[in-house]
Amino acid sequence: MNQAMKTIEGWYCLHDFRMMDWTKWKAASGQQREHALFEFKNLLKKWERIEENKQGSHSVYTVVGQKADIMFMILRPSMKDLNEVETEFSKTSLADYMKPACSYVSVIEKSSYSPMNTNPYEDPAMLSKLYPTIPKNEYVCFYPMSKLRGENTNWFMLPAEERKRLMFEHIDTGRPYTEKVKRIVTGSVGFDDYEWGVTLFCDDALQFKKLIYATRFDEVSAVYGIFGSFYIGNVLKQDRINQYFHL
Amino acid sequence: MNQAMKTIEGWYCLHDFRMMDWTKWKAASGQQREHALFEFKNLLKKWERIEENKQGSHSVYTVVGQKADIMFMILRPSMKDLNEVETEFSKTSLADYMKPACSYVSVIEKSSYSPMNTNPYEDPAMLSKLYPTIPKNEYVCFYPMSKLRGENTNWFMLPAEERKRLMFEHIDTGRPYTEKVKRIVTGSVGFDDYEWGVTLFCDDALQFKKLIYATRFDEVSAVYGIFGSFYIGNVLKQDRINQYFHL
Amino acid sequence: MNQAMKTIEGWYCLHDFRMMDWTKWKAASGQQREHALFEFKNLLKKWERIEENKQGSHSVYTVVGQKADIMFMILRPSMKDLNEVETEFSKTSLADYMKPACSYVSVIEKSSYSPMNTNPYEDPAMLSKLYPTIPKNEYVCFYPMSKLRGENTNWFMLPAEERKRLMFEHIDTGRPYTEKVKRIVTGSVGFDDYEWGVTLFCDDALQFKKLIYATRFDEVSAVYGIFGSFYIGNVLKQDRINQYFHL
Amino acid sequence: MNQAMKTIEGWYCLHDFRMMDWTKWKAASGQQREHALFEFKNLLKKWERIEENKQGSHSVYTVVGQKADIMFMILRPSMKDLNEVETEFSKTSLADYMKPACSYVSVIEKSSYSPMNTNPYEDPAMLSKLYPTIPKNEYVCFYPMSKLRGENTNWFMLPAEERKRLMFEHIDTGRPYTEKVKRIVTGSVGFDDYEWGVTLFCDDALQFKKLIYATRFDEVSAVYGIFGSFYIGNVLKQDRINQYFHL
Amino acid sequence: MNQAMKTIEGWYCLHDFRMMDWTKWKAASGQQREHALFEFKNLLKKWERIEENKQGSHSVYTVVGQKADIMFMILRPSMKDLNEVETEFSKTSLADYMKPACSYVSVIEKSSYSPMNTNPYEDPAMLSKLYPTIPKNEYVCFYPMSKLRGENTNWFMLPAEERKRLMFEHIDTGRPYTEKVKRIVTGSVGFDDYEWGVTLFCDDALQFKKLIYATRFDEVSAVYGIFGSFYIGNVLKQDRINQYFHL
Repeated sequence: MNQAMKTIEGWYCLHDFRMMDWTKWKAASGQQREHALFEFKNLLKKWERIEENKQGSHSVYTVVGQKADIMFMILRPSMKDLNEVETEFSKTSLADYMKPACSYVSVIEKSSYSPMNTNPYEDPAMLSKLYPTIPKNEYVCFYPMSKLRGENTNWFMLPAEERKRLMFEHIDTGRPYTEKVKRIVTGSVGFDDYEWGVTLFCDDALQFKKLIYATRFDEVSAVYGIFGSFYIGNVLKQDRINQYFHL
Repeated sequence: MNQAMKTIEGWYCLHDFRMMDWTKWKAASGQQREHALFEFKNLLKKWERIEENKQGSHSVYTVVGQKADIMFMILRPSMKDLNEVETEFSKTSLADYMKPACSYVSVIEKSSYSPMNTNPYEDPAMLSKLYPTIPKNEYVCFYPMSKLRGENTNWFMLPAEERKRLMFEHIDTGRPYTEKVKRIVTGSVGFDDYEWGVTLFCDDALQFKKLIYATRFDEVSAVYGIFGSFYIGNVLKQDRINQYFHL
Repeated sequence: MNQAMKTIEGWYCLHDFRMMDWTKWKAASGQQREHALFEFKNLLKKWERIEENKQGSHSVYTVVGQKADIMFMILRPSMKDLNEVETEFSKTSLADYMKPACSYVSVIEKSSYSPMNTNPYEDPAMLSKLYPTIPKNEYVCFYPMSKLRGENTNWFMLPAEERKRLMFEHIDTGRPYTEKVKRIVTGSVGFDDYEWGVTLFCDDALQFKKLIYATRFDEVSAVYGIFGSFYIGNVLKQDRINQYFHL
Repeated sequence: MNQAMKTIEGWYCLHDFRMMDWTKWKAASGQQREHALFEFKNLLKKWERIEENKQGSHSVYTVVGQKADIMFMILRPSMKDLNEVETEFSKTSLADYMKPACSYVSVIEKSSYSPMNTNPYEDPAMLSKLYPTIPKNEYVCFYPMSKLRGENTNWFMLPAEERKRLMFEHIDTGRPYTEKVKRIVTGSVGFDDYEWGVTLFCDDALQFKKLIYATRFDEVSAVYGIFGSFYIGNVLKQDRINQYFHL
Repeated sequence: MNQAMKTIEGWYCLHDFRMMDWTKWKAASGQQREHALFEFKNLLKKWERIEENKQGSHSVYTVVGQKADIMFMILRPSMKDLNEVETEFSKTSLADYMKPACSYVSVIEKSSYSPMNTNPYEDPAMLSKLYPTIPKNEYVCFYPMSKLRGENTNWFMLPAEERKRLMFEHIDTGRPYTEKVKRIVTGSVGFDDYEWGVTLFCDDALQFKKLIYATRFDEVSAVYGIFGSFYIGNVLKQDRINQYFHL
């Protein structure tokens, strides 16, 4: 009968995309801009203490192209925490120069087609995946995805064994990229409009294309993959903030 | 012949989503903000008296992500009442800081594939479902849905017996969640763009995902389910209102 | 060969949806609001004289939910007349507080799968359908629709006899609602994005759902029906205008 | 092999749709409005000289419903000319009251399933079709369209002979309307999002519906036709300009 | 198994579309406009030095129709460079008059169904394709595209040999246009919402239509091609900038 795979969840995840209102930013006084940046950096410091205390993680990116200018990726222990981070940022001065563009709500999800012999919540390797520090690589790639439920071809009606076979083929294709490309897979069934979110991290943006192009020829992607919008960003670390906002 | 299932309807339902204009809220004077909140709290008090008198029910949520900031869920005896609640809120000062985002119009709907032996309007258990007080759990999950009318696969052309079998399988999958996750199902054929609205209530947001993921492997969801956008929110009770709007 | 059904057309029809800018309305002075309402009521009086003289008909509704706040339904003898009514309203002061939301352009259409033995333009019953006064019931339901032209299932490739059979089944399902629910069907091929517009009128909004849900199980709706957005409104008669716009 | 039909092209064509900002127009001073209209009429005079000199053609329409308020249809010898006309209008004062709504870019296209025995560029009848003066009928109907490339049903994979048969049937259906309804068919492969644009002209708007409804039952439309949005407008000749913009 | 084709990548590519706010431009003072153009021309000079030094390339176009007014096409060695160019332009004064419309992020991609016998990075012909100077022809045509992954017809499940056969047929159809129409094909899997971007360059806009129409009858386009929006533009060289922005 129902052959849903067992999943284990970790931190909740918000991808929050904003459009920079450069015209308004330029019209602001130097003092207003300084104040906004000062406040923003303090907020980042607060988030960094949370990250250091393993109570969550975050990363900020400048997005290439016009879908957005900034992407925040935020991990927190509860959905309510995500909501509070989002509201907290909205109340800052810098948010007056960053209009909401879009967002994605999900939760870190690990699953296995093999039975788990140990309690995953006692397995340090698993814990570091459920409650990770977001890798601070140069580039990020985010996209939401679902699996096809077509009239003839339906992922959710396949026997678990067949899904397992297809996923293993997929994992094989991605293996050469494991070292270079880090990934955080989040589940969003019930939380947002696709079934999963995929966030990839790498110092060479080309590897995202290489990896995703290679896997597109896997049966699981070619036949069952439904992909939403792709977002590509540059990490915005402390040392690049001044430069980015400087006029 | 036509095999439409018999449905019984209760209160009308409006899901009203708003975007908070934080920039405008910050630009308002302290006095303007105080006045807006005072007026809003009075409106909530009025709605609470209606709820206490069993003439309707309501709940307010802060929404996670950028689809909306606030969701009102409103139950009232007539469609006209819903329209008046909506207009009443639009006339308040706080509404000047909350732009319409989207909405969903429906009516509480109960149906049964088994014949009803008693008059449902004399059955207290049924009455409490038709005219419920919205559960005040920590989290809400709302999504609209339809059933597939594809070229080969068409829910509305299935014999009633087959639909019954599929729905019973679906109910079985959801059974382990009955205690934790409350639900209000509303019908929206003729009222809005999908056929049903599903509103789930729980103190642990993860259970929404667990439940919906499990049921996605049921034939009725996997093959016939068409899902709209998913909205996830935190209940905004009286005691959190000041904190949420505080700058 | 080509088996298009013969259609007879009456008045042209515009459904004009507007969003009320409540913030701007509240910011207006009492005098500006009074003037805007005075002018609007004069326009309505002019339209009423047209309705009394059987030169057209109109009705105004407040729409439930955020798709729109106001819907005008306007019937006029020519497409040019519709355009003029629309422009005339746009030039009023009240229009400055009502942003265009969406619209639908069509023409009253009667058709028959049976041969017509008499000249329809000499048949009083037919004339009252082609040039009707819009019923002033409490509620309205509007939706546009098309018929499927799928790869395997195509309404427009069915023999006329089969289409006739399916439509007769459809009419049978709707028969119990004929008394309660009035309807105006308009054709929009060549005028707007769907093939027909359906406007229903009733004093009990629930009957819209009952009727449309029942017919959805008819083969013609289940298999061939493509439905656009559904709009539901409350009639805004003279006596409710002051109350609706009052702050 | 590749069985693309031979096409011959004439003038380039821009359909430019604008939304009138009536609120801003009303807020303008009488002098500003007079100036804007004076400048606009001078632009029209310039365009008329171009039309008289057979260097292009144009027509202006007021559009029914909320998709747009004004449609310009512009024919010019080169794509660059179209771009210049568009920019020239954008620089006028009246354009400040007319926000861009949408547009369509194409080129007049004639094609034939029969071999052409003569040089079309020496055939006066063909030349008048490639470089036409836009008919100044009371009504216009514009829609873009493509031909289906479905998984089972694909226009572009049909043998040329079959496409020819289907198009001849289509032409037969339209024949009774040839006198009343003029048409300009433009090709837009590579220029805009559909494959063709169809612009119809008639003094009786109902004939658009009659014609398009009749042809919808042709196999070529029923099975292969993909239709975009339909726009319907009233011609705005010199003598109606003052009235339209008058407050 | 996985039959992904080997690809070689060159410079990263941003297509950046903007809407000119003519109303704001007209409202600016002559001095503000002069300053904005002076600054913009300096930026172009900087980009030209980059182009001369073979560190990238760029081209600016005025777009026909209302999808956009200006298109920047930018080639740079890294994704980060693209992001910086985009931000640099956003910080100029002219950007205050050009609202973001849309964009496309990709990378120059060369691929071959035949084995490569030489190191492509040592082949001058290949290097000039990977790191090209954008042709400065009069007209540009841009569109994104994907290959179909349908339930019965799926490009990514075809054997490599079959894909090779189809692509060779496609190349044959395009051969008569090779001289007149230059092209830059960019890959966008993982970077943007389609799989490829196609940018064509020609002095005669009609050739875009002729080429794309001819290839639409190839099996690879007819059956497997999914096309996004088409954008058509006129090159905006230094000598036309003053004229374009002049009021």
